[in-house]
Amino acid sequence: MQLLDSKKIHDLISMNDVIKAIEDFYLKGDQSSVNVPERMHEEDGENTILLMPSFFEEYYGTKLVGVAPNNPSIGKSTINALMILNDRRTMEPLVMMDAQEITALRTGALGGISMKYLADEEASTVGIIGTGVQGFSHLQAACAVRPIKRVFLYSRNVDNVNRYIEKVNRVFPKLEVEYVEAAEVMKKSDIIVTATSSKTSVLPKVPKEELNGKHIVGCGSFRPFMQEIPDYIFERVDEVYVDTRTALKESGDLIRAQELGIKKKNTITLEDLILNQSQFQAKKNTFTVFKSVGMAIYDLVTAILIYQKLKEEA
Amino acid sequence: MQLLDSKKIHDLISMNDVIKAIEDFYLKGDQSSVNVPERMHEEDGENTILLMPSFFEEYYGTKLVGVAPNNPSIGKSTINALMILNDRRTMEPLVMMDAQEITALRTGALGGISMKYLADEEASTVGIIGTGVQGFSHLQAACAVRPIKRVFLYSRNVDNVNRYIEKVNRVFPKLEVEYVEAAEVMKKSDIIVTATSSKTSVLPKVPKEELNGKHIVGCGSFRPFMQEIPDYIFERVDEVYVDTRTALKESGDLIRAQELGIKKKNTITLEDLILNQSQFQAKKNTFTVFKSVGMAIYDLVTAILIYQKLKEEA
Repeated sequence: MQLLDSKKIHDLISMNDVIKAIEDFYLKGDQSSVNVPERMHEEDGENTILLMPSFFEEYYGTKLVGVAPNNPSIGKSTINALMILNDRRTMEPLVMMDAQEITALRTGALGGISMKYLADEEASTVGIIGTGVQGFSHLQAACAVRPIKRVFLYSRNVDNVNRYIEKVNRVFPKLEVEYVEAAEVMKKSDIIVTATSSKTSVLPKVPKEELNGKHIVGCGSFRPFMQEIPDYIFERVDEVYVDTRTALKESGDLIRAQELGIKKKNTITLEDLILNQSQFQAKKNTFTVFKSVGMAIYDLVTAILIYQKLKEEA
Repeated sequence: MQLLDSKKIHDLISMNDVIKAIEDFYLKGDQSSVNVPERMHEEDGENTILLMPSFFEEYYGTKLVGVAPNNPSIGKSTINALMILNDRRTMEPLVMMDAQEITALRTGALGGISMKYLADEEASTVGIIGTGVQGFSHLQAACAVRPIKRVFLYSRNVDNVNRYIEKVNRVFPKLEVEYVEAAEVMKKSDIIVTATSSKTSVLPKVPKEELNGKHIVGCGSFRPFMQEIPDYIFERVDEVYVDTRTALKESGDLIRAQELGIKKKNTITLEDLILNQSQFQAKKNTFTVFKSVGMAIYDLVTAILIYQKLKEEA
C-alpha cells in the first residue's frame, strides 16, 4: 500500500480543490451515507491519541492522531497523524496518507469557505495570529478565495515569525508580509485568523467601529479550556458561524460565547452557508465571526479527493 | 514508512519466537508500563470496525480491523487488518504491518502456550476443527511445542479441507494429515483445537473416560452469541484456563461455562500459567480446557518482536 507524504499530497491537490470538495460534499454528496462515530480519545501519560473513523459513500477512513506535547523540546512536531483510506464495502485498505497535511488543508479550507461566503469581496489584507501549520493553511485559504495582497502577522515567538515569513516569501512571493503588534493586526486586516493553542484571548480590544466589515476566523480553541477570542467580539455579534454545532460543546471560545448570550439557534453552520449561499450575501459588508473545530468527515472528504486524483494520475 | 506483508513477517519471526515473546512479556516485561484502553467497536451496515490501541514499554501500537462478512462471496477474506507501530514517547510511526498475520501468530501462540504448560508432554496427535487461518496457526503452535506426528481434521466445507491439507503438506511435509468425522477428531487427538465461527457446539459427545489426558483449545468464540464447546466438557472440569479474564464476558463458551458453575476464581490465566509454571506440572496428565479471545497487548508484543527483528536485519 502506498504512503502519500506531504509533498505528494501537495502535488496532487490545491487548497482550492479542498474547498470545492467540501462544498460538493454538502451540495452533491449522499448525506444519508455519512457515518461518523464519536472519536476515541485516550491519554497515555502526557501524550494523547485520537482515533477518528468515518464513512462516506463508498469509502471508510480512519485518522490516527498522536499528540506529544514534549516533542518541540526535542525539535519534533507535537502532532503525528496518519489517514488510512479503505474500501467501505470490502474494508480493504486503499492508500495511506500523511494526515498532518490533510488536517492542515481541510482546516484551512473550512476557514476558506467561511471567508468565501462572509468576508468582504474586496478583502486584500489578512491578519494571522499564530505562525503554526494552521496559521499558514489559513493564509493559503485566504489567498484562494480573496485578492489578498498584504499579510499582517503576530506571534510571541520571533523564531517562528521568521520561519513563517520565509515560507510566505517562498510560496507566495508577491505577498507583502509584515510582523506587527496584535492590535495592528486587528486594525489593518480585513480578515483576521487566530490559530494558536492559547487559553486566553489573543485579540486585543479595538474600538467597535474598527470591526466593521471584518471577518474573524478562529481555529485554535478546540477544547473547553482553550480560548482565543475575547468577550467583546462575541458581545458585538448576533450570530456565530461554526463548522459544526459539536463546536458548541468542544470549543472554549463557543462555551464563552454561549455564556455571553449566543444561542444555539444563532449559530449557522458551514452546511447552512453552502446550501443557502444567497441568503448570506449581505453579511459580506458586516462584522462576522467563524469558529471551526474540525470533524473527521472533512478529513475523509479530503482523503477521497487525494485518492481520486492519484487514480486519475495513474 | 515500511509496510511489512505476511511473507516478510513470516521471514522475520517463527511461531516459537512469538510464544517466547508472550512468555517474556509476563516474565520480564515492565507490567506497570502496560496501557490497554477499551477497544473501539463500530458497526457500519453489515460491516464492523475494531480500533485497538495499546501501549507497552517504549511502544504504542494500533490494530485496525475491518470485518466484512460478505467478502467470501466475492472471493475475498472476511477480515482486513493493519497494525501501526509508533514510538510511544514521540508518537512517530515506526512501521506498519499486515495485522492478519500478526493476529494469526499471536492467537496460535496463546494456544501454543496453553499446550506447552497443560498438554501431555508426549502429545503426538492434534485435532483441528475449522480450517481457517486460526486452524492453521494452532497447528503451527502445536508443532512448535509438542512432537506432533498426525493431524486429524474436520470441517463442513470440503474445499477448505483440501486447501488446508495442501498447505499442511507444503509447510509440514512430515506430518500425516487425515480428514475424519468430528467424533474421530475427538477420539484420536491428544490436543483438540476448535477454530470456527460457530454459534453452537462443534464437538460431539464422547464417553467421559475418552477425555482423560486431552487438552482442548477453543479460539473461535469471541462474542457472547458464539459457542464451540459443548456443556458436557465444562461439566467435566473444575477450572478453565483463559488468555484473559475479559474472555468471561466476551466469549459465549465462557458465559455458558459460568452458567454451568465455573466460577471466576476457577479461571486461570496465561499469566498465572507462565509465572507459576511448576504448579501446573501435574495438569499435563489430566483433561484441561483453554479458551482464548485475544487482546490488543498480544498484537503489540508480536509487532514489537517483528520490529526488533527488522532492526537487527538492517
